[in-house]
Amino acid sequence: MEKQDERSLPEKVSERLIEYILEKKLQKGDKLPNEHSLAQMLYVGRGTIREAVRILESRNIVTVKQGAGTFVCEKYGVSDDPLGLCLIENKEKAVKDLVDMRIIIEPEIAALAAQYAKEDDIRELEQRCLEVEYCIRSGKSHVKSDVAFHSQIAVCSQNYIAANIIPIIASSVRIFSELTNYTLLEETVVGHREITEAIKRHDCRDARESMMLHVMANKRRLSQPL
Amino acid sequence: MEKQDERSLPEKVSERLIEYILEKKLQKGDKLPNEHSLAQMLYVGRGTIREAVRILESRNIVTVKQGAGTFVCEKYGVSDDPLGLCLIENKEKAVKDLVDMRIIIEPEIAALAAQYAKEDDIRELEQRCLEVEYCIRSGKSHVKSDVAFHSQIAVCSQNYIAANIIPIIASSVRIFSELTNYTLLEETVVGHREITEAIKRHDCRDARESMMLHVMANKRRLSQPL
Repeated sequence: MEKQDERSLPEKVSERLIEYILEKKLQKGDKLPNEHSLAQMLYVGRGTIREAVRILESRNIVTVKQGAGTFVCEKYGVSDDPLGLCLIENKEKAVKDLVDMRIIIEPEIAALAAQYAKEDDIRELEQRCLEVEYCIRSGKSHVKSDVAFHSQIAVCSQNYIAANIIPIIASSVRIFSELTNYTLLEETVVGHREITEAIKRHDCRDARESMMLHVMANKRRLSQPL
Repeated sequence: MEKQDERSLPEKVSERLIEYILEKKLQKGDKLPNEHSLAQMLYVGRGTIREAVRILESRNIVTVKQGAGTFVCEKYGVSDDPLGLCLIENKEKAVKDLVDMRIIIEPEIAALAAQYAKEDDIRELEQRCLEVEYCIRSGKSHVKSDVAFHSQIAVCSQNYIAANIIPIIASSVRIFSELTNYTLLEETVVGHREITEAIKRHDCRDARESMMLHVMANKRRLSQPL
């Protein structure tokens, strides 16, 4: 294992801190011990702890609040740009590819959501659906609440991996927001309602089909001149 | 934009370095200017450059080779654990969810591969297919070459996003390797050959179906006692 030997001390310490978070079952927002205690606990200097914390910060595992301390990050280890999209040159092609991936993944996840959604998850989904509608009706940007709506469907599916991948794909579209042009507002309101209702009825087939129509409408729009 | 103001100087400098890599069209393995030149170029201290480089290193955007300099990383910005799987407690459930995601994604990507694969991509795929078979026949671990085979199918599909997601999902299974037990060796050899042949013939339907059979065999095995 060549890689293992090459790892720096701060990297190794950052792995120990991950183990600590898991052992202590720390949740999003929970506070870690201070630098001094961590340094004593792991037998390393405070400088090393500081570097290890910086590594975990860049991985969205912890977040440092000036003067308040170090906390488990709300993103719980999911990177901001995990697919390295910042390095893709042809942004237009990347958007098309993202939409194609959504067409593959999201209808099936909607079907799983209809099958496995729990009462609480559905209530939350209805809430997110209303939020998107509220943003659109009041002329605000609905990009953020749209990502939240699609992410909640992944939560309903009870698939951990989908719940991590969907927000990445949905929010990646925002990286290229200059290419997107939210003109399908009425379609979005109606589409989201249909999807929400199908999941609420636990109707897998309808959930899959309404999601397919919704993401296909996005694809069609992309292929038209802006 | 609350987030923007909170970013530290090294984080801002790391963004400037990404812009530099894009502007200069640096490719995987290309060397960056030394610390001193970067510090002069961006009007910051060498300590700040060092921290910025460390941030990019943890994002797999650059790699630092002791004594040789800083290079664009072969992983080109795709994180090692982008889905934060290291923080998932129930590893067994995570493996099942990963396999379910593969069932959703990989057959469709195989169909796209059959449609869009270029001559060179197919030659490379045949090579990867042989490598897996070689590892299995000679009793070596084929996990790494298996990931390479599935990743090459995503390359054949010409979808940037799939080419980034498939390696993540395929190699994530390795994180939980204690739960996996590669007993389906003969099925793997035959399955991979069928998939490769279908892509070579540009037969979308056959590529989708052979991939579906292949990933379903994996799912079946998981549901059996080890």
